[in-house]
Amino acid sequence: MANEYVRLKEQLKKIKSLSSIVALLEWDQETMMPHKAGSMRAMQLAELKHLVHQKITSRTYENALAKCIDVLTLKPRIKGLDLRNQANLKLLAEEFLKAKKLPSRFVKELATHQSQSTQAWAQAKANNRLTDFLPYLTKMIDLMRRKADFLGYDEHPYDALLNLYEPKMTIKSVDELFHQLIPGLKKITREAMKKGPGASNLSWTMSAEAQLQLCRSLKNSLGLSDDIARLDTSNHPFCESLHPLDIRMTTKIKPEAPLDAIGSTLHEVGHGLYEAGLPIDECELPGGEYCSLGVHESQSRLFETFIGQSLPFMHFLCRNLSSHIPHADPQTLYRHVNIVQPSLIRIESDEVTYCLHIALRYQLEKELIEGTLSARDLPEKWNALMQSHLGLVPPNDATGCLQDIHWSSGLFGYFPTYALGNIYAAMIYEHLQEKFPELAQLIAAGNFTPVVRELTENIYRFGKEKKPQELIESASKRKLSCQPYLNYLERKYLK
Amino acid sequence: MANEYVRLKEQLKKIKSLSSIVALLEWDQETMMPHKAGSMRAMQLAELKHLVHQKITSRTYENALAKCIDVLTLKPRIKGLDLRNQANLKLLAEEFLKAKKLPSRFVKELATHQSQSTQAWAQAKANNRLTDFLPYLTKMIDLMRRKADFLGYDEHPYDALLNLYEPKMTIKSVDELFHQLIPGLKKITREAMKKGPGASNLSWTMSAEAQLQLCRSLKNSLGLSDDIARLDTSNHPFCESLHPLDIRMTTKIKPEAPLDAIGSTLHEVGHGLYEAGLPIDECELPGGEYCSLGVHESQSRLFETFIGQSLPFMHFLCRNLSSHIPHADPQTLYRHVNIVQPSLIRIESDEVTYCLHIALRYQLEKELIEGTLSARDLPEKWNALMQSHLGLVPPNDATGCLQDIHWSSGLFGYFPTYALGNIYAAMIYEHLQEKFPELAQLIAAGNFTPVVRELTENIYRFGKEKKPQELIESASKRKLSCQPYLNYLERKYLK
Repeated sequence: MANEYVRLKEQLKKIKSLSSIVALLEWDQETMMPHKAGSMRAMQLAELKHLVHQKITSRTYENALAKCIDVLTLKPRIKGLDLRNQANLKLLAEEFLKAKKLPSRFVKELATHQSQSTQAWAQAKANNRLTDFLPYLTKMIDLMRRKADFLGYDEHPYDALLNLYEPKMTIKSVDELFHQLIPGLKKITREAMKKGPGASNLSWTMSAEAQLQLCRSLKNSLGLSDDIARLDTSNHPFCESLHPLDIRMTTKIKPEAPLDAIGSTLHEVGHGLYEAGLPIDECELPGGEYCSLGVHESQSRLFETFIGQSLPFMHFLCRNLSSHIPHADPQTLYRHVNIVQPSLIRIESDEVTYCLHIALRYQLEKELIEGTLSARDLPEKWNALMQSHLGLVPPNDATGCLQDIHWSSGLFGYFPTYALGNIYAAMIYEHLQEKFPELAQLIAAGNFTPVVRELTENIYRFGKEKKPQELIESASKRKLSCQPYLNYLERKYLK
Repeated sequence: MANEYVRLKEQLKKIKSLSSIVALLEWDQETMMPHKAGSMRAMQLAELKHLVHQKITSRTYENALAKCIDVLTLKPRIKGLDLRNQANLKLLAEEFLKAKKLPSRFVKELATHQSQSTQAWAQAKANNRLTDFLPYLTKMIDLMRRKADFLGYDEHPYDALLNLYEPKMTIKSVDELFHQLIPGLKKITREAMKKGPGASNLSWTMSAEAQLQLCRSLKNSLGLSDDIARLDTSNHPFCESLHPLDIRMTTKIKPEAPLDAIGSTLHEVGHGLYEAGLPIDECELPGGEYCSLGVHESQSRLFETFIGQSLPFMHFLCRNLSSHIPHADPQTLYRHVNIVQPSLIRIESDEVTYCLHIALRYQLEKELIEGTLSARDLPEKWNALMQSHLGLVPPNDATGCLQDIHWSSGLFGYFPTYALGNIYAAMIYEHLQEKFPELAQLIAAGNFTPVVRELTENIYRFGKEKKPQELIESASKRKLSCQPYLNYLERKYLK
């Protein structure tokens, strides 16, 4: 392999070492860190992130990269690289160019505003006073438009933001998908509601220790053994991956809601399996990084809902639970975790109505960015869309347009990836059902190895080599469409 | 405060941020990290330590320091600093000079040899083959002599090494102390042995969960609450402090030996209390750093043995244990934890014989450094001294001169600080007994607040402002002497 490429990779390895430490600091902050260490942790994180940023924008790195590839024309300057590494080089050059497009004065201004804005949002939400947050939101929208301008776009400024999280995805594609998805979901919701919940609330408690033990054993059953992955508890469940051999997930445990802890464990394990399946020998390169947020979410939703809320999984679960609830009944659990009930809060919503929440946010943030909606008019439009999509009107802004942190921290273009994740997952699940006619039996037996192997082979191992749509289409052997998702929901809730 | 000093402190804060992350990585490695993440962790640590080293030897730092103090003459260049900050500046300049004395080529050579040598030692110990380790030891001794020459010394090269761990301490002082200590300890050991053990082995098991819970409650009772300090488990107990509000201790738990877990908890809590008592507003400065290893060890031994193996503490402990052993009896526990019995292994030895192990190592490493003993002749001399000090001869080198990791990793001059710790602790304990006539009652009641307050006031808050001997003499209101230690042991074991 060319010396220039080896030297470039040496630099990237050092950067990866440091950025993986950032992940550890963040994990520790939410799981292990003594409470009073908070302000010192903020300093540690700021300093380390600053160092990482310095390194990836340094002249040293730029020179090392430029010896391997012409950053502007994307023409390789070294010979004998295989296709995979040619792709790595091209992606590195693109990332570098993207980083260079944002002036450092702008990056600093945005970071400062993010910090102030999320604090203002938290305060405004706690006090249910949207007006306190509006100036921050207005400024953030302005910053987002400027960011889009810096990054550049063909048709719509929103595309520039969306592409940060879902490369090559456009408003056009998302609009097309949602155009079919929204009426479909509304129809399924209506009809499922007519059928009635089919289950009363399950009253069932389990000690925190027993829940954690159970969730850890689920993690292991799904293929994330203790020698590469941990599961702990935190206030908000998450998955931080330092690299494919050090994956840290959390779940949230409440004694009265063991099924919630199980659900969030399966969600994070889905993320963790993806991270564990990325090629470790490329962990400093784009080939060792996840493809997109949508693809990531497809894996978490695949294991949380498609597999984890299926009847066969309830059979597997009941065998695991027998020491905790002697007469655990798969049908009862299945009905309980699959109640359809429109709700005001996105993160509490069920499988059917979840994407309606996303569609609402997508619609609003698109208009905010293009300027057809002003921040001031947000609550009115929010409430109207809630009424139209979910038949509910929030009693206040705290449970309405103030509920999510995303906009306050500048994550415009992020929401659609949640819906894309479900759409992708349905495509993959349909493929899995064809590929493994015995899928239900495998799940009921707790044998997830064939599924994880299939996902590794067709999704995980590619890293960023393919773009999201291409990756999902080739892995699922289907064209991008929300039909599999709608079919899955119809079969599950209406048949 | 002068702008130059403010800017220097800004730089030091960044360095402290990074070095405290090193501590977190090390803690995580021993407590939380998934097993297979080991080689990646080594890279993360190497990269971060390299960055810290780069920063403290950088021209930027040198310039910022030189604007505040003339590094060679130690004359301040800025006005209006209080005495405390003048001392900080002087210590910073001394540290910088010391770092500059070691050529970077030498530092690299030593680091490389350390890594190879500790691996060779571990292998040689496992196989009981000293000859495999001898070439590494010989080279390490040579490196240590060169290190001493680089650092400089007045009378003996060993002083240069000893001073790295115990500033201003010399062979002369240690020789004087040991000259009295060794015969004293031998006499007490002999007479205590004649009296017989006074206790049979206590057979008592406690679940790992219950032990950890108990040890955590002890940590809290001693003043290290959960919002600033954690206690977890690891293979070798240790205390890592990120800063005074983030202290991480571990203990080792075996179901059949709850008293061992309690003992190592108290030891590490002693270290932790010292770290928690250092001035947080100076945490980037020498004034916020511990004085010396000897002083650190005095705190761990004070809480582990002087307090933690006292009869009043057993009363306190038995009240805490009542749910685990209904008829816990202070006298039985007291006799059990205080059995005097010479042993081959330093880390398993009792309070009376422990320092005889140290005296042996001190004697040998002094001779190895001055060249009057060659590595080849080490086992013969080791065994002869074991016979003379402890009346035992090791059956092999694995339980003899190969037992400790220190020499293999270049920690010559480190061992005496263990003995100094006990000597200092005895001086402080004698003072505490005078200052608090009700000390026994306080301990029995589990009220450690007055003791910790006294230690904070007279030791912890000084950081590195005073040298170890000065600090301990003023805190204990006694001249440096091993008499308090001998008196304490005589009273405890022979009366």
